[in-house]
Amino acid sequence: MITGCLIGVGVGPGDPELLTLKAARRIRDARNLAFVAASGRRSTAREIAAAEIRPGTREINIALPMDPQPELARAAYDEGSSRIAAELERGDDVVVLCEGDPLFYGSFIQIFARLGQHYRSEIVPGVTSVSAASAAARLPLVWRSRSLVVLPAMLPRSLLGARLAGADAAVFMKVGRHLGEVRRLLDDLGLLERAIYVEKVSTPDERIMPLIDLEEEDAAYFSLILVPIRGAR
Amino acid sequence: MITGCLIGVGVGPGDPELLTLKAARRIRDARNLAFVAASGRRSTAREIAAAEIRPGTREINIALPMDPQPELARAAYDEGSSRIAAELERGDDVVVLCEGDPLFYGSFIQIFARLGQHYRSEIVPGVTSVSAASAAARLPLVWRSRSLVVLPAMLPRSLLGARLAGADAAVFMKVGRHLGEVRRLLDDLGLLERAIYVEKVSTPDERIMPLIDLEEEDAAYFSLILVPIRGAR
Repeated sequence: MITGCLIGVGVGPGDPELLTLKAARRIRDARNLAFVAASGRRSTAREIAAAEIRPGTREINIALPMDPQPELARAAYDEGSSRIAAELERGDDVVVLCEGDPLFYGSFIQIFARLGQHYRSEIVPGVTSVSAASAAARLPLVWRSRSLVVLPAMLPRSLLGARLAGADAAVFMKVGRHLGEVRRLLDDLGLLERAIYVEKVSTPDERIMPLIDLEEEDAAYFSLILVPIRGAR
Repeated sequence: MITGCLIGVGVGPGDPELLTLKAARRIRDARNLAFVAASGRRSTAREIAAAEIRPGTREINIALPMDPQPELARAAYDEGSSRIAAELERGDDVVVLCEGDPLFYGSFIQIFARLGQHYRSEIVPGVTSVSAASAAARLPLVWRSRSLVVLPAMLPRSLLGARLAGADAAVFMKVGRHLGEVRRLLDDLGLLERAIYVEKVSTPDERIMPLIDLEEEDAAYFSLILVPIRGAR
């Protein structure tokens, strides 16, 4: 018997119109749809895709505990992957929705790490929050011989500083509660005045402003900071 | 009189189904469409978007000379931007098509640099060749605390080496005739065996293979190299 195909689909950064035509088709044609949600909340990825989901589609909701203990998240991904595997074993495809792009800091990576070796797979790339933030801020990040570094904000200050050195542009991902540290680092490096803060990009709650004007010490979870280092804005 | 809006639209890496719903709508609704093409060739961006272009749409073809002299390219962008500006001055919007994402090594940056300060603008982000290559190779690039560097292959070897140090994953863009140098650098750093070569991603001519198995010394212009440095494949 032929097992099903594991299909990771990027739904983009938030605006349902930033789904690709292929993502929309895969979602419309899906018999099984899986997605991650913070426990007790609605899944952002499912909300982005909602207009394309047909009535009768079976849904696998992987509830991630708010508790930051990594073993709890691992257990949730283990359990969710087992439910996906059960459908694949029956011969049914499963479309796994993922915010942004599935393989760029995407939750799909956790599921792919568990099932990718055992089942056929297809991955539909999506628009990243980096591209959407750059577009919303009208800020070209890299061109010609310019290089880019993408840095999760939780990295230690010494690592962030070392990786910023020599880059022409930088993006800090997952800013959240690390906002204060990132702001102090950029200030010490003389880069604070160029940095642009972008929150919930491409959604009705989008906020874009110079980082220097942001008053909070904590940022939203879905936030990032663009830092054009070399070259005219 | 109200001038028109300059609309930069990312058409994605090659597969017409990787257009976003928004990009498809902007193209269908366009009265004026502009795009770049290598002189004497058809525009790749226009070919990707072809199914969405309505009969009667006016087209502005910006022919870039094959000659690598930068002043010739500058003159072509100057002239093309003037033709776009003439439409904007008449009050008509102009949709500028761009492969991949408009602000990530996109030709749109050259037009935006000339007109962005003078006219209203909107930018529709697109799927990058990096996301598409990672998807096609089924290769997660970055997750959790991992960082990424994106490096144009034409940079000097010493710069490339310095920027690779400490990164968890790297992407070499615009590989083309720099293939040999990049291969030697990766070999010297012990990274050659992990590197994946991706050419014309998401098109019928797509090629994906371990870099170590590639025999050519020159790569296609639309090619890139993915290097997962830290973390399991």
